[in-house]
Amino acid sequence: MLSRIRNFLLGPPLPTQRLAHERLNKIQALAAFSPDALSSIAYANQEIYLGLLIAGSAGLALALPIGLAITGLLVLVALSYYQTIHGYPSGGGSYIVARENLGTLPGLIAAAALLIDYVLTAAVSLTAGVGAIASAFPALWPHRVVISLLLLLIITILNLRGLREAGTLMTIPVYLFLFTYLSMLIYGAVRLLSEGPGTLAAVAPPATVSLTAFLVLRAFSSGCTALTGIEAISNGVPAFRPPQSRNAGRTLIVMALLMGVLFVGSIGLAQSLAVVAGPEETILSALARKLLGSGPAYLVVQASTLLILAVAANTAFADFPRVAAILARDGFLPHQLTSLGDRLVFANGMLLLAAASGALVVAFDGDTHALVPLFAVGAFLAFTLSQAGMVTHWWRERGNRWWLKATFNAIGALATGMTLLVVGVSKFAQGAWITILLIPVLVAVFLRIRAHYREVAAQLSMEGMPSVTPLPSVPRVVIPISGVHRGIVDAMAYAQTTSKNVTAVYVELEPGDGERIREKWERWWPDVPLVVLPSPYRSTIGPLLDFLDETDRQHDDGQLATVVLPEFVPAKGWHALLHNQTAWLIKAALLYRRRNQGYQRAIIDVPYHLQR
Amino acid sequence: MLSRIRNFLLGPPLPTQRLAHERLNKIQALAAFSPDALSSIAYANQEIYLGLLIAGSAGLALALPIGLAITGLLVLVALSYYQTIHGYPSGGGSYIVARENLGTLPGLIAAAALLIDYVLTAAVSLTAGVGAIASAFPALWPHRVVISLLLLLIITILNLRGLREAGTLMTIPVYLFLFTYLSMLIYGAVRLLSEGPGTLAAVAPPATVSLTAFLVLRAFSSGCTALTGIEAISNGVPAFRPPQSRNAGRTLIVMALLMGVLFVGSIGLAQSLAVVAGPEETILSALARKLLGSGPAYLVVQASTLLILAVAANTAFADFPRVAAILARDGFLPHQLTSLGDRLVFANGMLLLAAASGALVVAFDGDTHALVPLFAVGAFLAFTLSQAGMVTHWWRERGNRWWLKATFNAIGALATGMTLLVVGVSKFAQGAWITILLIPVLVAVFLRIRAHYREVAAQLSMEGMPSVTPLPSVPRVVIPISGVHRGIVDAMAYAQTTSKNVTAVYVELEPGDGERIREKWERWWPDVPLVVLPSPYRSTIGPLLDFLDETDRQHDDGQLATVVLPEFVPAKGWHALLHNQTAWLIKAALLYRRRNQGYQRAIIDVPYHLQR
Repeated sequence: MLSRIRNFLLGPPLPTQRLAHERLNKIQALAAFSPDALSSIAYANQEIYLGLLIAGSAGLALALPIGLAITGLLVLVALSYYQTIHGYPSGGGSYIVARENLGTLPGLIAAAALLIDYVLTAAVSLTAGVGAIASAFPALWPHRVVISLLLLLIITILNLRGLREAGTLMTIPVYLFLFTYLSMLIYGAVRLLSEGPGTLAAVAPPATVSLTAFLVLRAFSSGCTALTGIEAISNGVPAFRPPQSRNAGRTLIVMALLMGVLFVGSIGLAQSLAVVAGPEETILSALARKLLGSGPAYLVVQASTLLILAVAANTAFADFPRVAAILARDGFLPHQLTSLGDRLVFANGMLLLAAASGALVVAFDGDTHALVPLFAVGAFLAFTLSQAGMVTHWWRERGNRWWLKATFNAIGALATGMTLLVVGVSKFAQGAWITILLIPVLVAVFLRIRAHYREVAAQLSMEGMPSVTPLPSVPRVVIPISGVHRGIVDAMAYAQTTSKNVTAVYVELEPGDGERIREKWERWWPDVPLVVLPSPYRSTIGPLLDFLDETDRQHDDGQLATVVLPEFVPAKGWHALLHNQTAWLIKAALLYRRRNQGYQRAIIDVPYHLQR
Repeated sequence: MLSRIRNFLLGPPLPTQRLAHERLNKIQALAAFSPDALSSIAYANQEIYLGLLIAGSAGLALALPIGLAITGLLVLVALSYYQTIHGYPSGGGSYIVARENLGTLPGLIAAAALLIDYVLTAAVSLTAGVGAIASAFPALWPHRVVISLLLLLIITILNLRGLREAGTLMTIPVYLFLFTYLSMLIYGAVRLLSEGPGTLAAVAPPATVSLTAFLVLRAFSSGCTALTGIEAISNGVPAFRPPQSRNAGRTLIVMALLMGVLFVGSIGLAQSLAVVAGPEETILSALARKLLGSGPAYLVVQASTLLILAVAANTAFADFPRVAAILARDGFLPHQLTSLGDRLVFANGMLLLAAASGALVVAFDGDTHALVPLFAVGAFLAFTLSQAGMVTHWWRERGNRWWLKATFNAIGALATGMTLLVVGVSKFAQGAWITILLIPVLVAVFLRIRAHYREVAAQLSMEGMPSVTPLPSVPRVVIPISGVHRGIVDAMAYAQTTSKNVTAVYVELEPGDGERIREKWERWWPDVPLVVLPSPYRSTIGPLLDFLDETDRQHDDGQLATVVLPEFVPAKGWHALLHNQTAWLIKAALLYRRRNQGYQRAIIDVPYHLQR
């Protein structure tokens, strides 16, 4: 039943040999790696607008300068990653670059920053996408959390089915988005030329705070989220057709150009046309509405915004499980994260990501503006460590013109490092502190997990084991019974076959029951001793454990008695609710409660299957 | 760790012998049994007010007549239960009375109605109590759901600790409530006499619907919730000091008198003084505010309302688990509900009640007005069946003046039956349908559960078993291994002691691993065969189950091979997250997946305890 639902949602299992590398041409690769980067402009724009709006028209007039500054940063970062693509043709994620060139700790810091970044990519893209569509249909505005979670659910299921199918779905939204936005920007530029600019002072609400340098820095920091996702291509070089590095490098340049045009274009138009947004609308929606009215053209723009943001959230489902699997392979995260599910995807990592980003959406009430301060810190920390790692990389390699390459990366590292500082300070109180706190916590967890795995490996090593022999004698057997009925017959038969020394035990919950049981017992198994244990506190487990300890002590033969458990398996799942799960509780108590004794007690389950 | 938290919250275990009957004098008994009944006036009043308000001042003028009609009903029901107390001195709950006198099906209907009624008592009392305090502090109004759930949590924990401690806490709120309300009513009466009545027409909002007979009936129906809880004393006769029936009967009369005075008094005063309430206030709060201002005296009244309603919710925690335990004893609910927890309370029943009423509070957004339509149906159905059962009881018994007693109960049954009809029809669309639908569903569940238990008892019966013998031979053993390490050494030793025929099995998830394992294997256990199973779909379970089926078929000795599972027990709970729970998954698959084969496979767990 469960497995049928599972197959319907996720598709049947796939054999391992279908895991082959699919190579992408540049058109496909742009669609696969750019959604996160391109779609960032949707929320970055909105954050710059919200950050400046409180300073009135004087504030909003700074949107374009801030946009240009961020575009300058974009150029530096893009050039820097262009270097990485050529330095790490096998894929240079921040974790790998930082760990190989700077050491384990910087690598882990980059990894923690990345994982947080991916969770936020998913959460912010979803809420921003829902914000875009709720701008068009204000009735949806109060339901943003639920809609975001529904989208998250759909994306999770698609990804659990496997990327192959998800991949083909992606190209459409990306090129639709590029087409609609570029058309709109061109049309807007024509309108601007023919009609002349608007006057912000006439439409902007009055300033509620004065325009300080700190306010400008904060708007800049929020706007820096426009750069998130730019590193995707450098991680994915092996997916390109050969010559891989050259193709990847060119795709990066095209992507960076598109990012710059869309970002500066939309900010510039909104400012020149003096667009302001209402309380339940994004600035991009207001811009589109100003240019296109509220008709079908406007709706297409909003829908394509939602779609590309959904696809961006989707890229987190490729990135997060991949980084988690690499960390797990290195022993810093649970091994389970390395296992390919039966649809050849890292299902555990995907579920972890879905849970974390879903929790963020709920905790922050689906509000993009509240989530963004957590966002840029992780991204820029990973950028900085990665670029710094590349500097060391070129220096160590000392190849052809290494100093030029190192300089480019050094400039990139410096620029992103300074931005990181600005973002961390200016957004600290608004939420960046959460990320700043979380990164060292995650690093500590990574180290703790590796220490555990090393400890276990040492304990499990066969080194120095003298030799392996069977037990000196067949063990004593104790069989707890809940009554004299068919459910214990097979278990008794098994116990008597295994051992000559069998004792049955009945824990008497209701005083007087013991005598009744003993009478029946002696009719069926007259030669097996039955011990009735009183239970003043109505616990089955306590008296049984005490009895086992006591008799083990009395026998003192260096062995613990084996416990044979007659286990009653109901025919249908819901029937389990109608029976005390005593066998299960005894097992759990024997396995987990008494671990400090140093040696082990075997447990034999003999099931009795009810027929209906 | 867990058990330390548990002991802190719930207290240490108590021995069974402390389960003795505590006998209550009348003062204590009134406090123990009346809170539900007395506190009902809080929401009943409010519901009559809300039901009439929409018809403006003409509607509100009918509050007192409706209140008097309900008080008339109260007299009939009280007289009827007075009979029950003398007919069932051992405690006559509706289920027992209906089942003994009318048959199993009416008994189960009464039981279903009662269980629903108790869940609603808890939910409605909580939301009404929070409504009382939120009337005083309007800032709390939007947080009613959370506050209700917090209260529920506190009451649940107190009850899981055991009634003994909860009992002493109860008397204070009950007498505080009686004192404050009676004082307020007397003071109000004096004010009314000295100042003269107010004019409703001057203060009531204009009518939004016209005053129809149906509207009046609906207000009456809602007001009938005032009677809920009146049956409590008849259930609890054995708790009274002897002569039990006489003491219980007198306490019932006092309680009914108090109910009538409080109910009619508060309705009459509110109407005569022309009190109307704002949108975020209850009518009782408005009455208290009118008489006492918004100062300390008013706050004491609201606090005492909250307290008695909390105590009323608490009585559901005594009643629901008791009825559930009786049903479980008779095989209509899971056996687990009969087991006294180690604090001598029916912990499972309490948790069930807490979950159900918490869910109701959340589903109905903490709104008393939305919950009330579900409420009266269950209560009046139980009343009617119980009274009808009493008529049969007297008729069968034919004792002294049986016809008089039967007549009293018949009048009670008729009155409550007619009310049931009115309530069911007039509140049907507003929510009564939920209860009306739920009762037959619950009854069906009860019958289904009993059928299952009877089926199991038949299957487990030793009747006709020929004789019990050990197995013909020591079983073959298959031991799945995850590698060659210390964790499997004890399991191998155990397997080799138990059987001469041991096969190790390794499921190869990564192609090539098998050879590596085999080399190590042959170094340590050269005489035990190792089978390496390929796993194209990366599942451990599937290939193992197939191998077992295959070899069982080959051996064809009427036995299934025993599986020995080397189980890896981590030293700390969180470590379990770092290891694949493969042993556990294999166990589950062996126990539950293959149940259609008719015979059983034993599983031997040999734990290996990690030290750190």
